[in-house]
Amino acid sequence: MRMVDVGAKDKTERTAIAECWLRMSPEALSRVRESRVEKGDVFAAAKLAAIMAAKQTPSLLPLCHPLGLTSVELEVEAGEGGMHFVARVKTCERTGVEMEALTAVSIAALTAWDMLKSTDKGMCMEGLRLLEKSGGRSGHWKNPAVFRP
Amino acid sequence: MRMVDVGAKDKTERTAIAECWLRMSPEALSRVRESRVEKGDVFAAAKLAAIMAAKQTPSLLPLCHPLGLTSVELEVEAGEGGMHFVARVKTCERTGVEMEALTAVSIAALTAWDMLKSTDKGMCMEGLRLLEKSGGRSGHWKNPAVFRP
Amino acid sequence: MRMVDVGAKDKTERTAIAECWLRMSPEALSRVRESRVEKGDVFAAAKLAAIMAAKQTPSLLPLCHPLGLTSVELEVEAGEGGMHFVARVKTCERTGVEMEALTAVSIAALTAWDMLKSTDKGMCMEGLRLLEKSGGRSGHWKNPAVFRP
Amino acid sequence: MRMVDVGAKDKTERTAIAECWLRMSPEALSRVRESRVEKGDVFAAAKLAAIMAAKQTPSLLPLCHPLGLTSVELEVEAGEGGMHFVARVKTCERTGVEMEALTAVSIAALTAWDMLKSTDKGMCMEGLRLLEKSGGRSGHWKNPAVFRP
Amino acid sequence: MRMVDVGAKDKTERTAIAECWLRMSPEALSRVRESRVEKGDVFAAAKLAAIMAAKQTPSLLPLCHPLGLTSVELEVEAGEGGMHFVARVKTCERTGVEMEALTAVSIAALTAWDMLKSTDKGMCMEGLRLLEKSGGRSGHWKNPAVFRP
Amino acid sequence: MRMVDVGAKDKTERTAIAECWLRMSPEALSRVRESRVEKGDVFAAAKLAAIMAAKQTPSLLPLCHPLGLTSVELEVEAGEGGMHFVARVKTCERTGVEMEALTAVSIAALTAWDMLKSTDKGMCMEGLRLLEKSGGRSGHWKNPAVFRP
Repeated sequence: MRMVDVGAKDKTERTAIAECWLRMSPEALSRVRESRVEKGDVFAAAKLAAIMAAKQTPSLLPLCHPLGLTSVELEVEAGEGGMHFVARVKTCERTGVEMEALTAVSIAALTAWDMLKSTDKGMCMEGLRLLEKSGGRSGHWKNPAVFRP
Repeated sequence: MRMVDVGAKDKTERTAIAECWLRMSPEALSRVRESRVEKGDVFAAAKLAAIMAAKQTPSLLPLCHPLGLTSVELEVEAGEGGMHFVARVKTCERTGVEMEALTAVSIAALTAWDMLKSTDKGMCMEGLRLLEKSGGRSGHWKNPAVFRP
Repeated sequence: MRMVDVGAKDKTERTAIAECWLRMSPEALSRVRESRVEKGDVFAAAKLAAIMAAKQTPSLLPLCHPLGLTSVELEVEAGEGGMHFVARVKTCERTGVEMEALTAVSIAALTAWDMLKSTDKGMCMEGLRLLEKSGGRSGHWKNPAVFRP
Repeated sequence: MRMVDVGAKDKTERTAIAECWLRMSPEALSRVRESRVEKGDVFAAAKLAAIMAAKQTPSLLPLCHPLGLTSVELEVEAGEGGMHFVARVKTCERTGVEMEALTAVSIAALTAWDMLKSTDKGMCMEGLRLLEKSGGRSGHWKNPAVFRP
Repeated sequence: MRMVDVGAKDKTERTAIAECWLRMSPEALSRVRESRVEKGDVFAAAKLAAIMAAKQTPSLLPLCHPLGLTSVELEVEAGEGGMHFVARVKTCERTGVEMEALTAVSIAALTAWDMLKSTDKGMCMEGLRLLEKSGGRSGHWKNPAVFRP
Repeated sequence: MRMVDVGAKDKTERTAIAECWLRMSPEALSRVRESRVEKGDVFAAAKLAAIMAAKQTPSLLPLCHPLGLTSVELEVEAGEGGMHFVARVKTCERTGVEMEALTAVSIAALTAWDMLKSTDKGMCMEGLRLLEKSGGRSGHWKNPAVFRP
């Protein structure tokens, strides 16, 4: 078990985009859509929690490097059957930010979950995956698979 | 937006069980099964990260109450098509530990992800959900839905 | 220097209310009022940051006891000359939550500051003080002084 | 709500200086002056808490970037009517450290508060503001306003 | 790997006392004794760092339970050949605080180390051990061994 | 008390190696050797805890700079009379990582302690010291002293 040595890698701009879905009951989803969630604004809470979680990634995932992040952004939509979350994270460091984007998107979904759990105990997170990454030696990568919730 | 007042609720033993799946390529899965993951022991890392993440839940999910946890446990299996994670969390406090169990299980999966990402960029987390909760006013609840990854 | 021993004190319901003002330029204030702050919703961000900061109090203030909080709430208003923040924190522990309420309110104001600093570098936080506390041996206390920003 | 992209900004030396006042009763102030505070050395505690808080800024203020800090320093004085705190923070990163200096100075004052609250419940923090910032595109800025506590 | 279930244990007052030695060069030790350490007051810094570290124990040691602490105290002395640290920690919870006391005492010594390392690179921490514990099913225990640095 | 200004120092590769011993009873040591520790795999837990602790160093030691680490690694052996821990930490920053290596090694030993304390309350940590450091103005340094546990 070790944090791999990235000292010989270049500092370049690196980006990662991740997504996930939170499937929920029609009742829960309409509360989200109509801003009738008792605990408050789910969209704002998910966005802030995502940004803060991206910064906490190295203290959550044991082998992640502590990194300066230059940008974190979360988009949330109430789609069909549930909410859709997309996180974009950027850095100018020696290693990529896939794990930061994945952490951001999963904590965003769990934040929404926490606010909706009194309405729906049976929610399910799905399709949490990396959509795209760029920068660094391995260059640009796009997830070839299509996910349909 | 507020942390709801649980001051009037009783301190009782409360349990929550959550699960998720991490789907991965056959190559990644056989590395897990044969302990050939370069970064180390995925099972041990996932278990420890899950326990530590359960304790961090209130600093990740904005509206969660800070709680004393009496027990946290993670089971990991290399199943068909991927890894399966189950977290069990207990407390003797005024509110339940669903979010702690869900956080534990998702950080466990992300820890495995981080260790396997050089082999498979296309992994996908699925079926992250609550399986069971007990204790508190709402009593015992079992997720009626069946999830097949 | 020591964290005082509260082992002999009773577990009772304890509440604390704190307030502060963030004075800002008319330009900054009208942006807040008209939701024209580029970084997003100042009210939602301040509320969430306050709740999370209340939970971080023992890791910020060296001599504070780690406590279970049963409730945290923040009210924000765009008043005359600036924004007004009021935090209410509750616990059922052996010691009070004044410091949690004061920390919540100051981090709420700094969160607003961070979102407005590109518009106004000259903001000033004022009147950060305890308004009320109840519970515990010293009973109910109300701040006798009137603060006018 | 988003952490703004600073990837295109230059790494330059950036400094920020912030101040605040903690007004207190003559009794509390003379305890500070004569080192008769039961909980210990208020000056040392405020200084350490300020330095540690500056480092915690990105986990307190949701939209702040995680930054390497090259220097943090706090000056404390027992002045007329209360204590005066000045924090100086430096970095060589892509964005400024105003929020770090403001956070440092406010946590320093709250640390003193915590140590003095058994003597004076009615303390008030005032004049928390940025005094000066330099480095980066916007150059050198000095707060033109004079604050008299 | 699991956090053991303490749900069935009683809430009782529990105490733990731990100690360690930091051996250093005569030059370093005389700087400590004569308050000539450039970075500041080693005694105050060690005390505060110990108290804060005790509170961080569950986020440092993976299998430790999150606990409310009722008291934390550190004594530091400049003895023969080095500094001596003793931490006393108390709780009224379902499990003991040995690890909190040991963590406090080791972070206290490392804090002193950090402040003295420009004078002496060759310092050595020794005799870090539990001196005494009481409360809980196993009752009162005193370390029978004598440690001579 | 201040975090010294390292803004004028060069960014160079810097390495630090630290070690310590955890002396324990033959019974505890044979449990480690034969993987009969009830709480789980001591080696894996110590390694992960060490890596995570290295990253937490600036929030534990008040005057440490927040740093990007490029590599952290822990070796653990069950030797004669106890366990031996060696941590290697690297950075490409303006200041060294001695404190990160020392923190890693001490938290690794405390993690083992926590897992073994039900078998042996009388364990003792010894010989915690810096073995080697390189990089930066002071160049390569090796600890000239020999430590025999």
